[in-house]
Amino acid sequence: MASMMFTDCSPSTTARLLPLGRSYGVLCLRRLVGPLHMGPLNPPSSFRILSVHSSSISSASPVVPTAAMATEASAKVIDGKSVAKQIRDEITAEVSRMKEAIGVTPGLAVILVGDRKDSATYVRNKKTACDSVGINSFEAHLPEDSSEGEVLKFISGFNDDPAVHGILVQLPLPSHMNEQKILNAVRIEKDVDGFHPLNIGRLAMRGREPLFVPCTPKGCIELLHRYGISIKGKSAVVIGRSNIVGMPAALLLQREDATVTVVHSRTKNPEEITRQADIIISAVGQPNMVRGSWIKPGAVIIDVGINPVEDAKSPRGYRLVGDVCYEEACKIASAVTPVPGGVGPMTIAMLLSNTLSSAKRTQNFK
Amino acid sequence: MASMMFTDCSPSTTARLLPLGRSYGVLCLRRLVGPLHMGPLNPPSSFRILSVHSSSISSASPVVPTAAMATEASAKVIDGKSVAKQIRDEITAEVSRMKEAIGVTPGLAVILVGDRKDSATYVRNKKTACDSVGINSFEAHLPEDSSEGEVLKFISGFNDDPAVHGILVQLPLPSHMNEQKILNAVRIEKDVDGFHPLNIGRLAMRGREPLFVPCTPKGCIELLHRYGISIKGKSAVVIGRSNIVGMPAALLLQREDATVTVVHSRTKNPEEITRQADIIISAVGQPNMVRGSWIKPGAVIIDVGINPVEDAKSPRGYRLVGDVCYEEACKIASAVTPVPGGVGPMTIAMLLSNTLSSAKRTQNFK
Repeated sequence: MASMMFTDCSPSTTARLLPLGRSYGVLCLRRLVGPLHMGPLNPPSSFRILSVHSSSISSASPVVPTAAMATEASAKVIDGKSVAKQIRDEITAEVSRMKEAIGVTPGLAVILVGDRKDSATYVRNKKTACDSVGINSFEAHLPEDSSEGEVLKFISGFNDDPAVHGILVQLPLPSHMNEQKILNAVRIEKDVDGFHPLNIGRLAMRGREPLFVPCTPKGCIELLHRYGISIKGKSAVVIGRSNIVGMPAALLLQREDATVTVVHSRTKNPEEITRQADIIISAVGQPNMVRGSWIKPGAVIIDVGINPVEDAKSPRGYRLVGDVCYEEACKIASAVTPVPGGVGPMTIAMLLSNTLSSAKRTQNFK
Repeated sequence: MASMMFTDCSPSTTARLLPLGRSYGVLCLRRLVGPLHMGPLNPPSSFRILSVHSSSISSASPVVPTAAMATEASAKVIDGKSVAKQIRDEITAEVSRMKEAIGVTPGLAVILVGDRKDSATYVRNKKTACDSVGINSFEAHLPEDSSEGEVLKFISGFNDDPAVHGILVQLPLPSHMNEQKILNAVRIEKDVDGFHPLNIGRLAMRGREPLFVPCTPKGCIELLHRYGISIKGKSAVVIGRSNIVGMPAALLLQREDATVTVVHSRTKNPEEITRQADIIISAVGQPNMVRGSWIKPGAVIIDVGINPVEDAKSPRGYRLVGDVCYEEACKIASAVTPVPGGVGPMTIAMLLSNTLSSAKRTQNFK
């Protein structure tokens, strides 16, 4: 186990290290490493291995590493921000090619009900992301006290609008609305979130293909693919079994021939089970729950958690951490996603990807 | 490991022991047993623990056990035939109550295309089972060279017929037909097989309820329930990931809060993983694949496999065995299903149960 000086994985204490946000992109040290079980990591072409940021480790490591040491004994940071940018660039090119070839621009409609600030921010971010790749965005912003019928009317309008290829209902909805009823009203051909049970059923079944794969789990698998991390035959543990991340992530890993175990709140020995995994996807929302002792040397870790924890040294009074104790993971895993900058940027990139796919399918454009 | 004299788990050699069919219902010996991890087994009221059938063990056991020994050190046989009979009796009573209360009789329609003898036998067995519980059965038997359109016409007719509450298309269909297209034509409200992706999606999702659960995996879970075997928090391994058994069985176990691992053909260490399970459901179609060394002492085993193996001593020239080496399992597990007489009889009982549920739902009859 790492010394307390180096490790800061207590969820609610003052940070003793740099906020994780600042160590993003920095090569981690992996000193307790065993044999690597995964294939070589092939970062995407735009992936840059930064030199060791001495200020982020000098107070922590008993020996200031040389460049050679750092290269030999370090977990790769899986750079979601960089991969997401690469994917957005690819989408931009495809949107442009489609527009030139057949004059059609993909369109995403978002329905926002009420005045939650966080929801408004998410919707704005989606609009900005659409703009950046050339996808048209449509928005319906309804007041908090709207009726279900009014929301359904907008959904129906977007369902029938050929310029709209994807429809998102921003959650949560006001409590007087039946979320399931409203989500079910979105035509499956435009359900870019991929949450429709018909999509999930197709995802679960061999020989069937879902129209859309839910964005966050799709982003997790895309990160593995883009880093050349083999999934077939690997042992994978998914921590958490939510409808939007854990469950579909497990189905996706199984589709790629991993041997998958789903760990959840009723699991009696999560640490022991997780320690057997070659690939860990954690989506549980518990800051720093997965400690170094949960990780098999050489494992690959995809951390979906984005959890705010108190941090008196941060101007905002908090910082964001994942489900996985990043500092400890860096020393044991062969590759790990940081929080923020790991899975987060991938979700919105996958939403754009699903919208583009939908437009291509509608137009039968290859 | 048991001596070769006692064990006969080679899939294709002449049987040295009695065919499994004859040992059905006999109390197994569990001599290599460790601590029991499961709760006490509460057999259904109609469950009878038979006395040890001396001819089935005398040539195998170095010590002929006394009755007291057998009682102390034996795995329970999970008697699917007995449980299925109990369920059919319950269904008979419910069908009768419904008929008396609202004058409606549940109805099951089966569509058979072509002249395969095995398919004809299955269809006849379903009809007999319906008759035995008072469910009406309907049959459409089409010639091998029928068109897809003709089959779809019959499905459409049954879809619209209020006397039909469940529709089964007997598989396999002739090779010139698109199986997926034909199965998708069955109205989801009458899909008593539970294979529709919308049903599977709902099965996978928390907070959603499938209209029907596929019959064989439902039968596996029902056996655990009826024997009072707790699932919550247990470690479960499902061997096989077929759409009709393995995958839905894993989803069902997860719904009941087990920690589930799916082992399949690409799994590198199936024996090691399976040995960690409290509950094993095997549905892989490999005779005697799961040996004693795969089984944790005290585990509960549900064996879905029904595999014919050569047996010169059998009048038919073959006998049926499961995926699990039954003789070895009996010595290590706390409970095990025999083959035949375990899961097999449950499948058709669950089909009758789904048909009854469908009729009740249509009529809003509690």
